[in-house]
Amino acid sequence: MPRINAITVSDVRFPTSKELDGSDAMNPDPDYSAAYLTLHTADGPVAYSMVFTIGRGNDVVAAAVRSLAPYIVGRDVDDLCGDLGGFYRELVYDSQLRWLGPEKGVMHMAIGCVVNAVWDLATRRAGKPLWKYLSDLTPYELVDLVDFRYLTDALTRDQAIDLLTAQQAGRSERETLLRAKGHPAYTTTPGWLGYSDEKLARLAQQAVEAGFGQIKLKVGDNLDDDKRRMALAREVVGDDIGVATDANQRWDVAEAIAWMNELRDFRPAWIEEPTSPDDVLGHAAIRRGVSPIPVATGEHVQNRVVFKQLLQASALDVVQIDACRVGGVNENLAILLLAAKFGTPVCPHAGGVGLSELVQHLAMFDYVAVSGTHAGRPLEWADHLHDHFQVPARISGGAYVAPDSPGIGAEMHPESVARFSFPDGPEWRSS
Amino acid sequence: MPRINAITVSDVRFPTSKELDGSDAMNPDPDYSAAYLTLHTADGPVAYSMVFTIGRGNDVVAAAVRSLAPYIVGRDVDDLCGDLGGFYRELVYDSQLRWLGPEKGVMHMAIGCVVNAVWDLATRRAGKPLWKYLSDLTPYELVDLVDFRYLTDALTRDQAIDLLTAQQAGRSERETLLRAKGHPAYTTTPGWLGYSDEKLARLAQQAVEAGFGQIKLKVGDNLDDDKRRMALAREVVGDDIGVATDANQRWDVAEAIAWMNELRDFRPAWIEEPTSPDDVLGHAAIRRGVSPIPVATGEHVQNRVVFKQLLQASALDVVQIDACRVGGVNENLAILLLAAKFGTPVCPHAGGVGLSELVQHLAMFDYVAVSGTHAGRPLEWADHLHDHFQVPARISGGAYVAPDSPGIGAEMHPESVARFSFPDGPEWRSS
Repeated sequence: MPRINAITVSDVRFPTSKELDGSDAMNPDPDYSAAYLTLHTADGPVAYSMVFTIGRGNDVVAAAVRSLAPYIVGRDVDDLCGDLGGFYRELVYDSQLRWLGPEKGVMHMAIGCVVNAVWDLATRRAGKPLWKYLSDLTPYELVDLVDFRYLTDALTRDQAIDLLTAQQAGRSERETLLRAKGHPAYTTTPGWLGYSDEKLARLAQQAVEAGFGQIKLKVGDNLDDDKRRMALAREVVGDDIGVATDANQRWDVAEAIAWMNELRDFRPAWIEEPTSPDDVLGHAAIRRGVSPIPVATGEHVQNRVVFKQLLQASALDVVQIDACRVGGVNENLAILLLAAKFGTPVCPHAGGVGLSELVQHLAMFDYVAVSGTHAGRPLEWADHLHDHFQVPARISGGAYVAPDSPGIGAEMHPESVARFSFPDGPEWRSS
Repeated sequence: MPRINAITVSDVRFPTSKELDGSDAMNPDPDYSAAYLTLHTADGPVAYSMVFTIGRGNDVVAAAVRSLAPYIVGRDVDDLCGDLGGFYRELVYDSQLRWLGPEKGVMHMAIGCVVNAVWDLATRRAGKPLWKYLSDLTPYELVDLVDFRYLTDALTRDQAIDLLTAQQAGRSERETLLRAKGHPAYTTTPGWLGYSDEKLARLAQQAVEAGFGQIKLKVGDNLDDDKRRMALAREVVGDDIGVATDANQRWDVAEAIAWMNELRDFRPAWIEEPTSPDDVLGHAAIRRGVSPIPVATGEHVQNRVVFKQLLQASALDVVQIDACRVGGVNENLAILLLAAKFGTPVCPHAGGVGLSELVQHLAMFDYVAVSGTHAGRPLEWADHLHDHFQVPARISGGAYVAPDSPGIGAEMHPESVARFSFPDGPEWRSS
């Protein structure tokens, strides 16, 4: 039986702050980064995973991933792949590590990374991309992957089985449609705060021509600028294309309500992250105060317990899962099931580096086996750093193309890892 | 001007799991630990701080503290001590580190540690213990230390000034009383799950004889055991001593309500951590369902935004701040002010290693300058590991004795740090 005999963890950082790609009201200068994990057997590297960060602190996440080596090194590959629910629970419920969260922040992201590495291993051995692997599991197999602790006041195991069973009949038809037409996307590429009006208009025009049904603008730095940029975007894209807005946690509750009501006439497709991602009651108050503008959040929502409450409190119109924030595929499964229970659409967070490659699988699985629909569920797209991946996410006609390659999508080119390793890779030594 | 020219960070772990001290329904085998920080100038060590953990992962917290060296090494001591609010905000709002939280988990605990080290420095230079230093600040100086972002729907700067100003007149009288009589305490020493009935009864009897007005039992592992232990505790301590219960996050909402209603006849002083610390709405539902049993939580509450919501949702009867969980003294100040605004008593979390030494200052400051009362505000005490500190917390007649020594209380004996350093200290090499 093959065993995992080593892990390697690299601190990979791309100097994106030089170009103001990714600039927003709270993150003016991100260097898109990954704590990048490789699992090895005696035969060589066998699986890959990563945590996305925006620069400083990527070393701390890498240290947290390394600290989990005792949980995976020496383990039998068949045992790991045969009990993906058990492995997830083993890490999350480590009685001493729990103190560092529980289930939030650096340690939880590191646990999610290791859990996802085992998902990469399992799906490669099965010869399937993650979305297809998940879509082929039975409702009972799927719920065994989920930790229902702290969820049962909103979603029980039996209710989850019922939800999944109700969608089983249409799975194969939707899989065919997905392979033919892809998963609808929207693009954030035009909307970074650091871009000039001219660049915004040009990129918005290109987005429409490329077939995207929605674009997104960063807001929250200056109200007059936001009005001018929203007006410009509307003028360029016309009435039929969505223009979402994203404040990246900039506001308090009253300020969010006042600001968005000033932008109401531009018919925002949603306001994303109006305030602290921890503020369930704040989001609920904002949603009431900015109606009918929909409210979206999730890329910084720490775990399923906070998503549960956002849904219970009617605080959200759009659930934005992130592939690298929570406890791996398992916890994202719980979040997809919660969203389905409440009938709230899931539009995952992507962009950064690797997030598109990873999260597309969860969106496609949601379509095939959980929600059963694409309606109101465009998946984020930002057009940078895809070339560093062995299987880059691909867009065609404003939609993600369903990947065929086995795995979760995290594998980078070894040359990219070497070149952008921090602080000793050639890209950083020369800067 | 002296500058900080180095920091050292030690991974200190005490093998408490050998004795089942600290065993509860979710934490069966803690090794009480500290990521221990020392600030140095050219003259030698000048200030100390720590993060408490329960063993594994202490190395990750230590790595996170070390990663913050660039924010403090090279800084002028007078500048740091002269702008404790600015230094806190500088760390919390680092535009790249924010991604790792924001304001939660490992990175936030590490930031709190570094912030508290500067508090240790400032209070030592002023020649005052932290509680006295804070109690001598004006309302305006105090609110300048607080970050009101995300709080203004519940507490504004002006409201905080009014609260503090209303208590100014009685400060000096309360300080005199505090020095004479100490701060009332309760003890968790009898109640660990790993203890036999005989040990529970003996320690409960000793607690009454020592003058404590309340004890606390861990619950949540087995209902029959809980009933037997509660009955035994009530029999030993009589009707006039409080018996609090603590489930350490064991339950879902419905289970918490059902379980505590089975213990209702023993008149629990409160039920602590009935469910996930992230579940504001769950705590609110539990509080309604177990009334009149009070609900307490806080040792795992990640930041001021979650405390704000627990108070807004009427989910809590007792706010349990922790000295090492949030963003240092500054964020705990915000939490004390929120609790005062809602009129909810603060009974800090202590025990572990060092938590009593640190948090007593915040409780005493709360009494002198914020809440102005001891009523319903006993401070936790657990009788272990105090001897490792230069200024151990002291109990007399069931009350904490107000410390006189300058600083925040985190300084350990160098011999203790050396002996219990993990994994190379003599205590761990020999085990």
